Amino acid sequence: MASLQCSPAYKSILRQLSTHHLHTRSLAPSRSFLKNTTSISKPFSTTSAYYRDMTGTNKILTSKNMNEQVRKAEYAVRGELAIRSEELKNELAKGAKLPFKRVVGCNIGNPQALDQKPITFFRQVASLTEYPELLKDENRQLALKIYPSDAIDRAKLLLKHIGSVGAYSHSQGIPHIRENVAKFIEKRDGFAADPSKIFLTQGASAGVQLTLQMIVENNKVGIMIPIPQYPLYTATLSVLDANPVPYYLDESKGWGLTTEELQRSFDEAAKKGIDTRALVIINPGNPTGQCLSEQNMREIIDFCKQNRVILLADEVYQTNIYQPEERPFHSFKKVLKSMGPAYEGFEMISYHSISKGMVGECGRRGGYFECEGMCDSILEQIYKISSISLCPNVQGQILVDLMVNPPQKGEPSYEMYKKEYDDIYFSLIKRASILEKTFNGLEGCTCNTADGAMYLFPQIRLPKKAIAAAHAAGKEPDQFYCMAMLEATGVCMVAGSGFGQVDGTAHFRSTFLPQPELFEEFCSGIKNFHAGFMNKYRD
Amino acid sequence: MASLQCSPAYKSILRQLSTHHLHTRSLAPSRSFLKNTTSISKPFSTTSAYYRDMTGTNKILTSKNMNEQVRKAEYAVRGELAIRSEELKNELAKGAKLPFKRVVGCNIGNPQALDQKPITFFRQVASLTEYPELLKDENRQLALKIYPSDAIDRAKLLLKHIGSVGAYSHSQGIPHIRENVAKFIEKRDGFAADPSKIFLTQGASAGVQLTLQMIVENNKVGIMIPIPQYPLYTATLSVLDANPVPYYLDESKGWGLTTEELQRSFDEAAKKGIDTRALVIINPGNPTGQCLSEQNMREIIDFCKQNRVILLADEVYQTNIYQPEERPFHSFKKVLKSMGPAYEGFEMISYHSISKGMVGECGRRGGYFECEGMCDSILEQIYKISSISLCPNVQGQILVDLMVNPPQKGEPSYEMYKKEYDDIYFSLIKRASILEKTFNGLEGCTCNTADGAMYLFPQIRLPKKAIAAAHAAGKEPDQFYCMAMLEATGVCMVAGSGFGQVDGTAHFRSTFLPQPELFEEFCSGIKNFHAGFMNKYRD
Repeated sequence: MASLQCSPAYKSILRQLSTHHLHTRSLAPSRSFLKNTTSISKPFSTTSAYYRDMTGTNKILTSKNMNEQVRKAEYAVRGELAIRSEELKNELAKGAKLPFKRVVGCNIGNPQALDQKPITFFRQVASLTEYPELLKDENRQLALKIYPSDAIDRAKLLLKHIGSVGAYSHSQGIPHIRENVAKFIEKRDGFAADPSKIFLTQGASAGVQLTLQMIVENNKVGIMIPIPQYPLYTATLSVLDANPVPYYLDESKGWGLTTEELQRSFDEAAKKGIDTRALVIINPGNPTGQCLSEQNMREIIDFCKQNRVILLADEVYQTNIYQPEERPFHSFKKVLKSMGPAYEGFEMISYHSISKGMVGECGRRGGYFECEGMCDSILEQIYKISSISLCPNVQGQILVDLMVNPPQKGEPSYEMYKKEYDDIYFSLIKRASILEKTFNGLEGCTCNTADGAMYLFPQIRLPKKAIAAAHAAGKEPDQFYCMAMLEATGVCMVAGSGFGQVDGTAHFRSTFLPQPELFEEFCSGIKNFHAGFMNKYRD
Repeated sequence: MASLQCSPAYKSILRQLSTHHLHTRSLAPSRSFLKNTTSISKPFSTTSAYYRDMTGTNKILTSKNMNEQVRKAEYAVRGELAIRSEELKNELAKGAKLPFKRVVGCNIGNPQALDQKPITFFRQVASLTEYPELLKDENRQLALKIYPSDAIDRAKLLLKHIGSVGAYSHSQGIPHIRENVAKFIEKRDGFAADPSKIFLTQGASAGVQLTLQMIVENNKVGIMIPIPQYPLYTATLSVLDANPVPYYLDESKGWGLTTEELQRSFDEAAKKGIDTRALVIINPGNPTGQCLSEQNMREIIDFCKQNRVILLADEVYQTNIYQPEERPFHSFKKVLKSMGPAYEGFEMISYHSISKGMVGECGRRGGYFECEGMCDSILEQIYKISSISLCPNVQGQILVDLMVNPPQKGEPSYEMYKKEYDDIYFSLIKRASILEKTFNGLEGCTCNTADGAMYLFPQIRLPKKAIAAAHAAGKEPDQFYCMAMLEATGVCMVAGSGFGQVDGTAHFRSTFLPQPELFEEFCSGIKNFHAGFMNKYRD
């Protein structure tokens, strides 16, 4: 099981400081703080190099003279709560007696860390490409004792186009795989896709970071982001010294998005001298889980065209769709192309990933983005920047191929593939529903249905006493609530303040990924904690 | 085999422009250029969206308003020559008659693309971790028909600590693997290493980019880099808008490095108002291949201490050592620690990778860096930035484990491991020697011996007529020479101008990785070409 370990010293720092306070020269380490640091390998002494570290007076590189944009960036998904949850996991492993038997990580969409089984065919192919001995004709009979014939054939075909999985590939991604991605897009949308406009990446995150960096010319540039949003965006914009231009999703309308709100956001930024160049849409939403309607998407495209902003369509949850009849997924590519020749040349980038859906191969770091309407000099620049990092890891590329080109009906592995896929899918729907009901049953808590993605994002309405206690502890109220939940139940969420929210509201994001067999225990743990918390701080 | 494919349009752009000219508004596409672009999917028309693309007047994002630092960055290793070599490869595949039978990529250290075999044990373990069915007790007999028992046991041990290779891991890297890296470092150096100061990365490149970004506070910051250097450094500094502070290696002294030259470089930068904060040392050197002596390394450490610069030690070629008695590898960590307690707190980062050595698993993207003397707030920031990208890919982490913890004497796979390792090693030494002799036998060409790494970096002295022809073509002389070599022989090098060199000199970098069985043909092709080129342009 993945476990986070940090040195006692910097865990201690994080506990002392909320995410909103940064190191300042006036921070004098307290006696108790210094005591906590004696577990590091240096002897404790007020004149030691370590003491001077903390005041930043002797080191060449400190938090005071490092890259400020990097220092300001925040990423709550693996922030304070996640770090504390790992400490608790370690304590449990050492036999400590805590109010709970296990730590449950609901802070991150990491299905295979919560026992979701990988798709068998995909792992068989990956296994074979690692060790091509198995693909030799003389070993076929032996290989067939373990692997189905279609996995063997697929591995052979891939290696024919790749050579060795240990060699650097084309910096844009293996051409054969990009061709398969193009075919997948065409089949999904009914419109042509061009492999030369497709770039394979190490997860969608890497693609987002690369393309945002390309677009952010200077610190006047603004990028529109949804509130709430997945904090990769705010963190990346912070590092780039760009301006997040927030537009609010409407919780009372199922996290709906209006072009009036987009325009308001754009115009307000313009008044501040911000040069807004792109609009990030996460569809299905993260953390909010809503799926956009086609009509809404056409309006968004028109907004972009009129205001000359590039559309950045984060579509990594496109197969996590739980109401496929009422709220199906439409790709922005398809909607754009169906709007006809007047929209020829519209600039857009669409992102996809192997980390989500039923695939869940997060740790492999694979994905792609497709450019639409970008001029060739930009494509050339994207290629150049990709080449500096040589190439995306080849196993990640292979999983992209498998994701877009899975077993087909009639093939030996199809039945098992379909069963595994459907089992995960229906299990997700079921767990989402149970957890949504649980949240809606909590005092002062409301939770929108998740049309898609992997998360629920309930709103909590905390008593004034709780809010006061939070502020006294130097924390946002939802961070305070989540920390209390973690300490009481072992369940690790992410506070809504990490995603952005309407001022004065409080939320948290929870995945619905915990194992089905533990789900009941998980839900009752939350119910009991919440009741206790509300009673403790009742006005 | 990996192949580069770019759309005809932007390949055409690259052919038209040297690496030193960038798009300007005054660039009017010539008729022939536009003709070349009709192979894309749009119909040709002067009023088409595509035409407007090229003049940049209609697109939101163009090379004129993109991030300028990104635009200025250059990376010759996969630049114009590499792109042209891929075109030629495609033409050969389609049956074109060219002066050569095959394209030979000597531009990049990518051993497994040139048929270097992967280490069998490593691939066996990777294969097993992908498909844990094989590790079940009930399948052991079957698994043992294919895999040795120690590979099975290692895969089991790794998965015990990892869970699933498809899950996000700890953002700093799997703790068990970091512990093994620490043990490797201790064994290598004789001094303790701390797993909490070690960060696993997607290749050393990713670690270099992350740490440089941390250090570059503003555009006054300077980072010292060797000339010649591996252009990851100049490209990264360009993107960060930082100042490269060049120090010259002395070709007449086996690419030696003096602290006088370091001081000269530092002082000259200071006069320009540059705030130099770090020194990059590549040891063994790339492209130059020299190994530093211990004495030299102590002087370098003293230089850093006196001038308050952080030492960044790129040691990815530490096992590519071809004169282990006369010019062995010493790690900077070991040398630092052996200098005693007066150097306690010295700030340094050391980088390593799975891409080089006898491992050659470039496409997997794995490596690590070890921090020494960095203050805890910085380690915390490094952790934070790592967490935004979630984690390095898990198979890359597994290969780091295998690299630092290979089969030991007495274990079932040891003999085969040792044989494979030694075969590659001695073959590299042999090929380096043959190629060095070849280069030294060329008219006007001298080439230093490679103590280490994977490259030779000969100096060529071209006739004035050739230099004039180069300038007329808008190219650096060595770029012109390399392009001619490529068109004549199919051999792709990287021009010295891509690495930096003393003004007025010309070099090229060649790997010595082409397959042994083709080596004779490869060397005679170069000899014939060179003789022809020198004759053609003889003054």
